[in-house]
Amino acid sequence: MAKIVKRYALLIVDMQNDLVMPGSPLRVIGAKATVPAILKALTAFRNCKLPIFHAVREYRPDGSDVEITKLTNFIEKNKGLVPGTKGCEIVGELRPLPGEYKIIKNRFSAFMNTELDFMLRRLEVNHVVVCGTQYPSCIRTTVFDGISYGYHVTVLTDATSAKSQEIAEANIKDMRDVGVECSETSEFLKKIK
Amino acid sequence: MAKIVKRYALLIVDMQNDLVMPGSPLRVIGAKATVPAILKALTAFRNCKLPIFHAVREYRPDGSDVEITKLTNFIEKNKGLVPGTKGCEIVGELRPLPGEYKIIKNRFSAFMNTELDFMLRRLEVNHVVVCGTQYPSCIRTTVFDGISYGYHVTVLTDATSAKSQEIAEANIKDMRDVGVECSETSEFLKKIK
Repeated sequence: MAKIVKRYALLIVDMQNDLVMPGSPLRVIGAKATVPAILKALTAFRNCKLPIFHAVREYRPDGSDVEITKLTNFIEKNKGLVPGTKGCEIVGELRPLPGEYKIIKNRFSAFMNTELDFMLRRLEVNHVVVCGTQYPSCIRTTVFDGISYGYHVTVLTDATSAKSQEIAEANIKDMRDVGVECSETSEFLKKIK
Repeated sequence: MAKIVKRYALLIVDMQNDLVMPGSPLRVIGAKATVPAILKALTAFRNCKLPIFHAVREYRPDGSDVEITKLTNFIEKNKGLVPGTKGCEIVGELRPLPGEYKIIKNRFSAFMNTELDFMLRRLEVNHVVVCGTQYPSCIRTTVFDGISYGYHVTVLTDATSAKSQEIAEANIKDMRDVGVECSETSEFLKKIK
């Protein structure tokens, strides 16, 4: 078989204020600490002129598109991730530049009912590099969908977060078991430079 | 809000000889021990005349539809889950009866590119009860897709398996965190009787 040339894209998942910033009811505890590592990956992909996707989660204010298990909390408590609010915006340091792609999703996986797969194909990407938050839900479903659609997938472990280190590690173990590369950002970035 | 009547369906995932039987290279270690609990659930759903789905994984012998991370192993080693082989068949005790639905999938999730969602809607099911193998991949992706498509989901913990108890427990924790009910079979079955 001929050697296949890797064509990478970076996919940053859900790094929005509501999910990252201290004080937010939806905050993922580990997320803020990953901003520097994500920025390092983002900068490297920018420098190499490789495609960059920012997946964000958005909900309608009446909750009509919220997952059934989150609906009561959404209505009665947090009302988070509503477009037009500060909480819904991508954190300042990671804000997309012109030429980068924003993917709006309202389920866990960045592939579900979005244009992500179509765009990756158009760009002839064959390897998706994932980071962001959080491991057990949006990262993991995106990763398994990526594998299912035929992409190689790398997760940048120090640029990806969960509520606890224990959850992060259990998810890394399961993902490695199905052939997902889980690598530290600086280690991975040696491959694209 | 009016009380919503639960309309359950049972979904048994990947209980095929290649994935269950000792000696198979694809065997999931915990799977065989779950057969009695799955049979208990299956019998209860049969007695209550509730819909029953058997999801199975099938691959073409040339590997053209195998996940990219499994392809080398498939070609060079196991060639498992090929229709027409004994290994691809559902284990004897759990074989479908007439009137039960078989869903053929070749990715992790029983929802991906299958008719499962269409059929559940037609049957007006609003709560999917999942068991089978294995926790970190086919069970988990199916469960998250189920939630994403708006179903309530229960996982029957003693009727679902993984390579180790540690993996099973980490997955149960993550699934509970997004609102999935994880319940022992006998406990759950009290609700449908």
